[in-house]
This record gives sequence, C-alpha cells and structure tokens, in this order.
Amino acid sequence: MAKIWDKGFDADKAVSDFTVGKDRELDLRLAKYDVIGSMAHIKMLAKIGLLTAEEENVLHDELERILDKIEKGNFRLDDDVEDIHSQVEAMLTEKLGETGKKIHSGRSRNDQVLVDIKLYLKDEIMALKNEILQLFELLQQLSERYKNVLLPGYTHGQIAMPSSFGLWFGAYAETLVDDMHTLVAAWRVADQNPLGSAAGYGNSFPLDREMTTGELGFATLHYNVIAAQMARGKTERILAQSMASIASTLNKLAADNCMYLSGNYGFISYPDNLTTGSSIMPHKKNPDVWELIRAHSNRLQSLPNEIALMTTNLPHGYHRDYQLLKEVLFPAIDTLHQLLQMAHFMLQHISVNKEILSDPRYDYLFTVEEVNRRVLQGVPFREAYQQVGHEVENGTYKAKKEVHHTHAGSIGNLCTPQIREKMMQAASQING
Amino acid sequence: MAKIWDKGFDADKAVSDFTVGKDRELDLRLAKYDVIGSMAHIKMLAKIGLLTAEEENVLHDELERILDKIEKGNFRLDDDVEDIHSQVEAMLTEKLGETGKKIHSGRSRNDQVLVDIKLYLKDEIMALKNEILQLFELLQQLSERYKNVLLPGYTHGQIAMPSSFGLWFGAYAETLVDDMHTLVAAWRVADQNPLGSAAGYGNSFPLDREMTTGELGFATLHYNVIAAQMARGKTERILAQSMASIASTLNKLAADNCMYLSGNYGFISYPDNLTTGSSIMPHKKNPDVWELIRAHSNRLQSLPNEIALMTTNLPHGYHRDYQLLKEVLFPAIDTLHQLLQMAHFMLQHISVNKEILSDPRYDYLFTVEEVNRRVLQGVPFREAYQQVGHEVENGTYKAKKEVHHTHAGSIGNLCTPQIREKMMQAASQING
Amino acid sequence: MAKIWDKGFDADKAVSDFTVGKDRELDLRLAKYDVIGSMAHIKMLAKIGLLTAEEENVLHDELERILDKIEKGNFRLDDDVEDIHSQVEAMLTEKLGETGKKIHSGRSRNDQVLVDIKLYLKDEIMALKNEILQLFELLQQLSERYKNVLLPGYTHGQIAMPSSFGLWFGAYAETLVDDMHTLVAAWRVADQNPLGSAAGYGNSFPLDREMTTGELGFATLHYNVIAAQMARGKTERILAQSMASIASTLNKLAADNCMYLSGNYGFISYPDNLTTGSSIMPHKKNPDVWELIRAHSNRLQSLPNEIALMTTNLPHGYHRDYQLLKEVLFPAIDTLHQLLQMAHFMLQHISVNKEILSDPRYDYLFTVEEVNRRVLQGVPFREAYQQVGHEVENGTYKAKKEVHHTHAGSIGNLCTPQIREKMMQAASQING
Amino acid sequence: MAKIWDKGFDADKAVSDFTVGKDRELDLRLAKYDVIGSMAHIKMLAKIGLLTAEEENVLHDELERILDKIEKGNFRLDDDVEDIHSQVEAMLTEKLGETGKKIHSGRSRNDQVLVDIKLYLKDEIMALKNEILQLFELLQQLSERYKNVLLPGYTHGQIAMPSSFGLWFGAYAETLVDDMHTLVAAWRVADQNPLGSAAGYGNSFPLDREMTTGELGFATLHYNVIAAQMARGKTERILAQSMASIASTLNKLAADNCMYLSGNYGFISYPDNLTTGSSIMPHKKNPDVWELIRAHSNRLQSLPNEIALMTTNLPHGYHRDYQLLKEVLFPAIDTLHQLLQMAHFMLQHISVNKEILSDPRYDYLFTVEEVNRRVLQGVPFREAYQQVGHEVENGTYKAKKEVHHTHAGSIGNLCTPQIREKMMQAASQING
Repeated sequence: MAKIWDKGFDADKAVSDFTVGKDRELDLRLAKYDVIGSMAHIKMLAKIGLLTAEEENVLHDELERILDKIEKGNFRLDDDVEDIHSQVEAMLTEKLGETGKKIHSGRSRNDQVLVDIKLYLKDEIMALKNEILQLFELLQQLSERYKNVLLPGYTHGQIAMPSSFGLWFGAYAETLVDDMHTLVAAWRVADQNPLGSAAGYGNSFPLDREMTTGELGFATLHYNVIAAQMARGKTERILAQSMASIASTLNKLAADNCMYLSGNYGFISYPDNLTTGSSIMPHKKNPDVWELIRAHSNRLQSLPNEIALMTTNLPHGYHRDYQLLKEVLFPAIDTLHQLLQMAHFMLQHISVNKEILSDPRYDYLFTVEEVNRRVLQGVPFREAYQQVGHEVENGTYKAKKEVHHTHAGSIGNLCTPQIREKMMQAASQING
Repeated sequence: MAKIWDKGFDADKAVSDFTVGKDRELDLRLAKYDVIGSMAHIKMLAKIGLLTAEEENVLHDELERILDKIEKGNFRLDDDVEDIHSQVEAMLTEKLGETGKKIHSGRSRNDQVLVDIKLYLKDEIMALKNEILQLFELLQQLSERYKNVLLPGYTHGQIAMPSSFGLWFGAYAETLVDDMHTLVAAWRVADQNPLGSAAGYGNSFPLDREMTTGELGFATLHYNVIAAQMARGKTERILAQSMASIASTLNKLAADNCMYLSGNYGFISYPDNLTTGSSIMPHKKNPDVWELIRAHSNRLQSLPNEIALMTTNLPHGYHRDYQLLKEVLFPAIDTLHQLLQMAHFMLQHISVNKEILSDPRYDYLFTVEEVNRRVLQGVPFREAYQQVGHEVENGTYKAKKEVHHTHAGSIGNLCTPQIREKMMQAASQING
Repeated sequence: MAKIWDKGFDADKAVSDFTVGKDRELDLRLAKYDVIGSMAHIKMLAKIGLLTAEEENVLHDELERILDKIEKGNFRLDDDVEDIHSQVEAMLTEKLGETGKKIHSGRSRNDQVLVDIKLYLKDEIMALKNEILQLFELLQQLSERYKNVLLPGYTHGQIAMPSSFGLWFGAYAETLVDDMHTLVAAWRVADQNPLGSAAGYGNSFPLDREMTTGELGFATLHYNVIAAQMARGKTERILAQSMASIASTLNKLAADNCMYLSGNYGFISYPDNLTTGSSIMPHKKNPDVWELIRAHSNRLQSLPNEIALMTTNLPHGYHRDYQLLKEVLFPAIDTLHQLLQMAHFMLQHISVNKEILSDPRYDYLFTVEEVNRRVLQGVPFREAYQQVGHEVENGTYKAKKEVHHTHAGSIGNLCTPQIREKMMQAASQING
Repeated sequence: MAKIWDKGFDADKAVSDFTVGKDRELDLRLAKYDVIGSMAHIKMLAKIGLLTAEEENVLHDELERILDKIEKGNFRLDDDVEDIHSQVEAMLTEKLGETGKKIHSGRSRNDQVLVDIKLYLKDEIMALKNEILQLFELLQQLSERYKNVLLPGYTHGQIAMPSSFGLWFGAYAETLVDDMHTLVAAWRVADQNPLGSAAGYGNSFPLDREMTTGELGFATLHYNVIAAQMARGKTERILAQSMASIASTLNKLAADNCMYLSGNYGFISYPDNLTTGSSIMPHKKNPDVWELIRAHSNRLQSLPNEIALMTTNLPHGYHRDYQLLKEVLFPAIDTLHQLLQMAHFMLQHISVNKEILSDPRYDYLFTVEEVNRRVLQGVPFREAYQQVGHEVENGTYKAKKEVHHTHAGSIGNLCTPQIREKMMQAASQING
C-alpha cells in the first residue's frame, strides 16, 4: 500500500481498505446463509404484518434468484460494496426499489452477521463430523486388518513392551471419539438462533423469533439479546477449541508416522509418490505430507488462544474487533478439512512392516510378558521377576515373541464394535 | 537450590528433587482416588482368581483404614516416597507384607495415575457444575429483580441504545449455558475408565475391565489401551478448554463491572468493604476484586495453550513430560472455584443505579426507538428516520425515555424460564 | 478441493498442492534476495576455483537480468515450479544449459532459503525501524504541542489524578524505545550469514564463507552449520517477539483511543471521515480504525506462540514443518507495517478536548495535589491529608485546577530531548 | 476455602485473602530491593530538603538493620500486613514514629513496586547471563573434545548426511548467542529507573530522579511517568520473551537427548543414577531429567502469551491485574535457573558412542560425500551423481566413512574461538 506519508495518499481509501480488510473475500462463503436468513426474516415479517404477502412474495422470488446465482458460482461483491449484507440489499433495492429496503425492518447488520455465521458454522461442523467419521472408519478397518502384526511399544521414548498395529490404528479411532465430544459442544453452541437480537439490545418490533428459529432449523434460540451478541467470539472459540482438539490428534498421528518412517525405525512405508526421496540415498523417504500435517495442526492448536487474545478484557457489546474473527477462523476451517482428508488419503496407502520384531534390538520387549506368564503359572511375582532378571543378566534369556492378551482393549481383544458404538452415540448428537 | 557447580553438590538429591518436583504436594489430592481405585482393582483381582477372598478382605480393610486417614486429613507422603502410589503401597506392605504387594498385579503406575486423575477430575467437574449453577441462579434472580432498570447499551464502546439490568444480568446467565456445553464435553471425556491399560500396552492378565468400570462408576471405558494412555493430555486439555471458556465469561463480567464502577459511568456500586478507596478521593472505589478476577481469568485462558505446548509433536506412549500436567492443571482448578465463588459473592452485594438515564448524555439513546415507534405507526422507515434526524439537528428532539420491547429475549420479555430450561438440560448430562 | 474419496481424485496433484501450499505466492517476496544470494555465491565459487571467470560472468549477467525483471514486477513462478529456488535455477538452465546448473555446487536449498529469509527479514526490520521512528517523531511533536492540556489520569480505571496530553503522547513515544530494544535483538539474530551450511551439516567444498558474509553485508556468520539450520524458527520467533512487543504498544494506544473517544469520556475526536457515525445519533463516532488496530495487534501478539507450537519438541535438523513459518510470519509483517502507518495516519488527525476538566466529575482529581501543596508549605503530611479529607467531607473543598510538577518526566518537564536521545541510541544499532 | 455461601463465611477475610493472593510469599524476594530503593529515596529527599540530615541518618540506619535481617534470612511479613512495602514502613514506624512515615513523601506504592521489580529483575538477568555462559563454556569444551566423533545427521527425521558431536555440541553453544541477544534487550528495558513516577502521573515534589537513578545503578530513567507505569507488563513480557527463547534452545537440546538416548539410536548414554531403568529391561534407560527439562521449557515458552493475555486491551494506567504478573513471572525465573543448571549437570556426565557409524544402516550417509569427492576431482556433478546412483543400485557402493570438511563452521573447522568471541561481545552488554 502507498505509504501514508506519501503525497497522493488517499485518506478515505486507506481507511476503507483497512476497515474492509478481507471481508469482501471472506463474506463470499456467507452469501448463501445471508440469503437464507433473509428468507426466514421476511416470512416472519409478513406473519407479524410488517410486510404484505405480496411484498414477501416479490422479495422471496428475488432472493431465490440471488441464491441460485450463488449456488452457480456467479455471485460477486461489487467493488464499492463492503460486505455481503450490503451486496444483497443493493441487489434487492436495484430490482425492487423501496420494497427491497423493507427487508431491513427489525434487523441490524449485527444480528444478520451473527445468523449467517451460525448457519455457516453448522454446515462446517456437519462436514467435519463426516470427515472424522470417514477417518474413524478407515482406522478401524486398518486396526482389524493388521491386528496380528506386532510392533514395539515405547514409554519415555524407550523400547518398552509389545504393541501391535491393531492397537495403534484402533487407538486413533477411539481418540477421535473424545474429539467428537468437543465437536458436539461446538454444535450445541452454534445451533442457537441469534436473529432478532438486532444490534445486541433488541428492538421494539414484535418479532416472532421462535418462528425464524424453526424456519432456519435451529434447535433453540439465544434468547437474551445481549447473550446473542456475546456469543460472537464464544461461538468461534468453542469451535476453535474443538478444532484444536482434533488437530492435536492429527498431530500425534503425524508425529508417529514421521517416527515410524525414519530409518531408525522402519515400521511403515508409503508409495514413492507420497514421499520425497533421492536416488543416491535409497533409504531416505521424507515424510513431507505428515510433516506438514504436523505443522498445520500446530497452527490450528494456536487458534483458540488467538481468539482469546482478541476478545479478552473487552466489555460486552459489539466491537469492530470481532470482524477479524472471520479471517482467523474461516481459513483454519479449510485447513482442518484438508488435514482430515490428507490423513485419510495417506493412511489408505500405508504399508506395515511385518518383520519388525526379528531385529534383536527388540528382544527385551518380552521380558515383562515372560514374568507375567510365570506369575499366571503360579510363581510368585518377585520370584518370577528375579528369574527373568537373572536370565537376562546371564544372557540365557530367550524371547518368546508372542503375546496372549485377552482383556478388553488389549492386543488380542480390540473391542472394535464397542468403540464404534461409542463413536456413533457421540456423533448422533450432531444432527441437522 | 545449591548451584550444581558448587562443591558438595549432591547429584542424586538434585536429580531426585528435580524429578519429583511438586508431586509430593500435588498427589495429596489424588490420595482418596488412589485408594478407591485400588479397592476396585482388588475386588476384580479376586473375581478373576488372582487374589483369594481372604487376601482381598485383608487388603480392603487396610485400604479402608487408609481412606479414613485421608478423609480425616491425617495422611501425608513420607519424605523418601516420591508419589501417592508408592506411599499407599508402602503402607500396605508394611502392614501386610507380601499380600500388600499383590495389589500391583495386572496394574502399572501408568494406569493407576490415569484412573486417579479421571476420578479426581470427575469430582472437580461436578463441583464446577454446581458452582456455575449457583452463579446462574443468582444472575437470573438479579435479572428479574432489576428488569425495569434501564441503562445505556454500547456498541463500539459508544453510547448506542437502551439496555437494562434485566438484560445484562440475564445475558451472563444464558452465556453460562454455552460454557456448560463445554463442561459436558469435559465430563464425557473424563468419564471413561483407563484402569487395565497398564503401561499403555495392556498385559497378559485376564482383567475384567468392565467390572472395574462399574465399580468405579464410570460411564464407559477407554477400551483401547493406547487410547487410554493418549487420553493423558487430552483429558486435561479438554477440561482446560472448558475452564477457559468459563473464564472468558467471568472475564467479560469483570470487565463490565470495572467499567460500570468507573466514575465515568457510575452504573453500579458495592459496599465499601468490597472495594478500596481513599478518604480524600471519595468517588474513587477501586474494583480490586473484579480486576483480579479479570486477571486470573486471563491466566486460566492461557491454560489450554500451555498444555498444547507441553504435549504437541510428541509420539504416542507415556512421556515423563506428562507429570507436569498436574502442576499446570490442578492449581488452576482451585483458582476457577475461587473465581466462581468470588463473582457470586460480589454480585450478591451489587447495587444498581436507578437514575442513570437522567444524565443528558444518554438522551440520544432513544433516537432509534423513536424512529421505530413511528414506523410501527405507519410512517415509512426512510421518512421516520429523516424526521428524527431533523429534530436532532434542530435541537427539537425530545427523548421519550421508555422502551416497549416485547419480542423473546428483549428488555420487556426476558425469557427467564426458557433460559433456565436450557441450562437444566445441559447440566443434567453431568451426572454422577 | 476435490474430496479425496471422490472418483477422479488425482493423488499426485493432491500431494503436490498440499506440499507446495502457499509457497508459490510467498516466495515472490524472496525472489530478489534469492538472486542476490546467488550472485555472492558464484563470486565465491569463482574465487575458490569451482567456476571459471567466464562462467561467473555469464551467470552474473543472467542473474542481473532476472533481478531486473523482479524489480520491474515482471517475475512470476511458473505453474509447474514449486519454489523460488527452482524457478531461478530453471531460468538459468534454460538460458545457459549446463553452466546454469553449476550454480548449485556447494549449496543446498536449505541454506539457500535460510539466506533468502535472513536478507528479506533484514530489509523488513529496517523498514519497521523507520516506521517506528516516524511514529515516535509524531508522538513527540504532539506531546510538545499539547503539553499544557490537562486530562484526568486513571488508576484501577478510576479517576485518580491530573495527567496531561503532553504526558500521554510522550509516554507512547518513550515506550517505543523499549520496543526498539527488542527490534535490535531481532536484527542481531537476522544479521548472520547462514550460506554454506548446506543441508545443515556443511559439505566438502572449500567454501569461503567469510567472503559471502562480506558480499551480502552480514555483520557476522552463523559459523556452526547446525546452528545455522537451528536459526530457522529462532530467527522468526525472535522477530515475532519484537513484533508482538510493538503490537502491544499499539494495542494500548488503540485501547486508550477507543476509551477517550467514548461518549463517557469525550477527551479526543477525529474528523468524520475517520470514524463511522449515524445522523440520528450525532454523538456516536465509532472508532473503527482503532478497534481494528486493537484486534490486529492482538493477532500479532499471538504470533510467537504460534511459532513456538510449530517448532517445539522437535530435534535439531531440517523438518518440512519449517516451510509454514513463512505463511505465519510474512503476512504478519505486512500487517505490522500497516498498523504503524494507520496509527501514524490517525494521530496526524487527532483533536484534543481542551475543556475536559471543567466537568465537575473531575474535581476530586486535585485532592492529592492539594495535600502535597500543603506539605511543601510545611504542614505535616498526616495533618494536610486530614484537612483536605475534612474539606471534601464538608463540601468545602475547592479544586484548584492546576498542577506544578517539575521533576524529570512530569507534566511540567517532559524531557522530550532526553527521550529522543535514548531512542536514537537504540535505533542506531540497526544499521545496514 | 470456605464456600462463600456457607454460614460463617467471613466476607472481609475472603476479600482480603483473594486480593492479597500470593503476595506475602512472593514479596519476600523483593524485600532487599525495597529497602535499597528506600535508601536511595531518602538520600534524595534529604538533598531536596524534604528530610533533615538527621532524619535521613536515622532512617538509613534503621533500613540497614532491616537489610541485615533480610540478608540473614530473618525477615518475614507479619500476618496482617499485605505486602513488602507495608511491612518495611510498619517496621520503620514502630521504631521511629512519625519520622518513619516521612519516607513515603513523594513516592507511591506504584513506583515503589516498579523500582523493586526492576532491581530484582536486573539481578536475575545477571544470574541468567552467568548460567548461560557456564553452559556455553561446557558446550564448547564438549565440542572440542568430541570433534572427531561422527554421527548421522538427519533431515526430515531421516538419516541424511554425516555430522559430528563436535558440530552438535558446538551448535548449541552458538545458538545461545542468539538467546543472549534477547537477554540484552530484556536488560536494557529493565535497566531504567521508574522511581519518582508515583502513581503513574508524577507529583508536585521537586524530586531529583537523576540522583536516584545514579544511586541505584540504573543506566537511565523511564523519564515519562506514564511510560514508567506502562513498563509494568512490558518489562515482564520482554524478559519472558527472552526466557522463552532460552527455553526453546533447552527444549531442542532435551529433544535431541531423548532421541539419542532411545534404543533406536543409542548415540549417547548417562550414568545409571541419572536415568531410570529396569533390571529386566537392561536397555531401557529412561531420560526422565531431559523429559522434564523438555516439559518445563514448554511451560516457559507459554509465559509471554500468558502475560499478553493479562495485559492486552487494557488502557494505560495501573490496574490491579498487574499484581498477578509477579506470580506468573517469578516462579518461572526459578524454573529457568534450575533448567540451565540441570542441563549443565547432565552434560557434564554425558558419554558419547564412538562406534555409531559401524551400523550398516548408516552406510548411505556418505553417498553425497562420494559425489562431491568426484566433483572436486573434476567429474561433472551430473555424471558423478549418476555413477554413485548406479553403484548404490547395483549394490557395489562402498561407503568410505570419513569426511573432509574444511569450510568455516564445518565438521573439520568448528570455529570455536570465533563463536566464543561473538558470545562475549553480546554478553558484555549486560553489565552491572
């Protein structure tokens, strides 16, 4: 931008560029919801007598036409229009004159943007739910497919005890259930109608807010008009917290993949076109996709904090600061979709190494198994432990590389259906 | 501490002091849950034949004695004992010899601390729920009591439109419902039994994990043993996110109180002993309590990020890093209890200024009301707006300082019972 | 993007889109520095005999042509090229064949991007320094211009003691000195040559790294090649910390402006085209620009934490994660430039209210002054305090609305030149 | 604490407990500086005629006695005293009556706590500088000692090229120079005298602030009294940023140590008493100390963000919120001292594995070396690369496990003295 101390600096343009910011681009994704919100609003205005049936029809038809344009991808914000609400209003007014303006009765831009965002976020939450379920599904399949392939389990980053690919894949499936619980919270907070709160203090029109709630498919209302306005920031943050939680699961999955792919582990591999390599270093298969999932998931984890910084210490009521929440949250949602999809894509192509445990470095994995085996045969624990310890010390210890774990959730008893049931119960609470 | 390059530096002690950290103090609050967890564990061991009925009885009685000591406040960690699990085990062994040691069959410290923390957090979540409900209750009472007292509503920090104390108090009540949704998520994640996951990879004992789940009152299990271990960090974070959400509500309430108490507003007051003042500056009533609630609530909002930093980029499996989660989370829980209690305490003593709107600076608050009044009487909006604009310009505008808002959630229709119903539905999902 | 489970999903394209990310756009700002770095590199290669003089000339001329293109804005990354380094190399090779490829001797993309970023950040730091100095200059002018205009000073958000616009503007000028100290640290860290560190472990070519250090105008080297690679992340973070510090000053300035502009204060005003208002609410002048500066400065304050999350817990050596640091930091630098310029722009147009203290609500501001006046006249403090207290209580206290502060840094002795001297000393350490 | 809705709840005590918080404990470390600040203040008061020479003597002697008590560890805050300033004043008044109270002339608690904190932080910064230098010294020694021991270098977490322990240790030494630059910034910000700023708006006493600046050993003043008050929060944050930067270096060092100690690497080891292990899993040496350094360093990295949250969006002037900065920052400083000392302690006991490269998994490390060797012998790069590629493919490639790196900062040319020189230049700017 032109430096403000340059000659020829246009103050009005500078202020306008700065205050509009990225809204003209970001608001495009709200367009559909803005029109849908307006349709519900005019239907309600007609019911309470603030529009004639004829006016409502005319407005509704024109809104339909705009919606059609949006869905066909032919909708743009004009250069001199600062946000989606102005654009739609301008189009209505151009076509319908005074009738076009009547749509603004009993509404302000504040509750209009609130309702647009709520509707938009509900759709995104639904999409996230579905992507999580698809990843969950794949993880459960992989868990069952590889349930007999053992690998070393680590504690403190040290080789510790036998684990399995069945456990490993299944663990991420089950962990996504925890994340789903947070997404349910985000859904419940998003699923409340703020329309009618006007500029945050209500108004004197006899609005039928229950009616718009039903029309727009919200489960309930933000009743209190100040509470509706206070939900700005809170709605975004609670969704961001859920996104951070999902991201932390992807982060760990990425960290595991990077580790397992390292030449010092070699537990898994991917087709060549999904890693980057070098013809003179044949063992080098850089896990770029997983490294970037790891990095992106860290950016997502910083999201709730960024929102907290933007909103803390401010009294209630609308502040222009909230405009920037869109540019913080919306692109992050795109990123999370992409991460869930890329993780799914990568895992579809994973190969597991079935011979990991033939490496003698993993022999001591089975000492605890050996001790427990003897305990179950009646040897007191202390004695069994000493026996095995001596064998290890004398070099006579022979690893019996098999495990017989039978309890719920163990290598031999993955409880795949029970985990699935838990997930379905959680996910079913997010329903359109 | 002695500098490590000093002579006479004791390496073993330095390492031990550093690694034990604050555990001996923090673990005290886990003592009760450690014993309860052990009781369920031995009952299960007896059922699957790893303890005789006699052994179980003896162990149970001794655990009862320890529990009694804990509840009477007579329980301490010995100086040479590093954590709660060792302390309980040492006490059992001292009393019961080899039988005391048998309690450790099929269990490791990893799942023991996991189950202790889950049980502890469940109790804390329940206590938070109750404190939130009490604050909610008071806010609803205040909302009804002062529903007819108007005050200015602000947007952009500017005097904007009429609001009321009914709206203001009621808004915080309703906003707590959103926070309750996040607490439900925290509850669901905490309410899963990790016992039996051993060191994060299960074991070869035929543990009956469903039995301990029932004994300990968990709604379900972390089935997958790796998932149980991965819940370390995630459980803490999801609770911390909820705490941050609650804290952000308290932060805004505190910011509002500080503003309303300022000499430039003067909307509310508190008894002298709840503020600090000066005899030569009689109007100065420093809102110290609210300022500190604001500051503490900011600390709490930083909590999820601190946990994210501690856990990100690490592969699955136990890392010693997780020990520090206790010292991050536990004192923060105490703080949140205190903030909820102090906010409740302060609001019990709030006085509201009933004459705010007599100050002429608030006259223009009612211009929008005036425009809408004329619109409802049939004047087209544009014309009504111009009429009022002219009156303001000519100085003939006379503010009619009353509002007739009737729609749901507005000044004249606070929807207190509906908000209550929403809260009760949300809170009912947190149940022991 | 096409969902990855759609038919027709192109795996290679999906991976490439994901891994290239925003690099093709972000790298444009590195183009100039990439070419400059290459010029120094080939000069050095010629000196150590790895290029002939002829080869160097040919390469240098072609690089000049590319640089010219960049400076004229005619430079683009081709669609199939993933980053700036490949683009420049492709252009050289297309023109010069094998000679074009020789530029890559003794260098890897890792140290190439490191040196590009260092050179780029040095230029940005220099620009930030200049913008800070311009804002500083204006604040000092305003401080002197309005040194006699009093306003209330607040503590705890309460009206407390006399202050002045001279103090207020001057305080922000001086605070920028503290920020400048952090920018000096960022400069020192950026001002080190990483070229020659190759992929982070050096190589077997007899590179003359001191020569390229001099050629590129770096003050010193990152000597150790691992340290050079470890500076990725740290360089960005230390600059981000400085940016956060500057942002926090702008944040407070914005918070003050929003408060002073509120109808409950009315201490300052701006021309109508720099605020937004309403014809029926003539006193409503929304401080949109300052609100957005406040919000943007909060985003900037979250920056170091975001970088910390992305880099923590990772061992040394290059990780692909670091690629995303560019998309975190670079747009944030643009934002900070814009905020510094907008703050400067707004303050050029500020008007201060010279009649603030005629409002009786500020009468008690002067009680402390009155006590101190009597103390200086010999009355013991306690007695003076009681006298004034009684007068306030009896309503006989008369505020003498003037102050005689003479000590360094007080209302009557702003120390403008001394503060300027401090700033110049700090800023002089950032020198090209 | 007693629930506030219990009978018998003591409101005054609850408010007092809440507002005093941890001050009585935290202020102990300010005691010394409070007394020293008072000594300078009374000397100045005497000079400007607000104390007689006799009064100054009496006060000075009594302050000396208090200081002596503090240094002997016999100083406590009485139960009914809320902070260090009140305690010292109470002791003076008890001993000296009215004269004791005169110390408060021309000063407020606000600038008193500001000066205490500045003096305290200066001492802590000096101590941190020294600990960093000791760690630097040790790292340089280790770098020289093990300069000939090779180990694999990793990129993308993949085995990539030859590295060495000389490089590895030396890299951390040099990286500490970058951290030292940030500590210099923290020092410059701390090294400014705020005394005389009173409650943030100065006062009418003819204070000689330059005199107290000299007496207290500050390099300069916060001239502007509002700037002095605004330095609260900023001083803490800029130090916290430096601490975060140091912590991030320790974090990476810890991450490397954990990795190198893993059974999948085995590059280093520590004596048994510095790790934890198991007799039946002889290869398991848990790196507890490094894991805890890693975790603690993450907590420290969250510090600047926590301070940002507490201070953002607040207008200038004192807020009670700032009291909590002490409990955020002070214990963190203790932690950082401990981490620097523990890292130093551990590294004193490190053993490096000299046979790492005999493991065939590292054979391909040297392919790039081989290519470069041929290039230096005159083979065109492309051809050399193809030759080696073919040998690798055919299995005829033989790794020549040696490196001849000669350029500055490479394996064969560590530049230890130059790095030392850079460190000394940076550190020398922090001088008492």
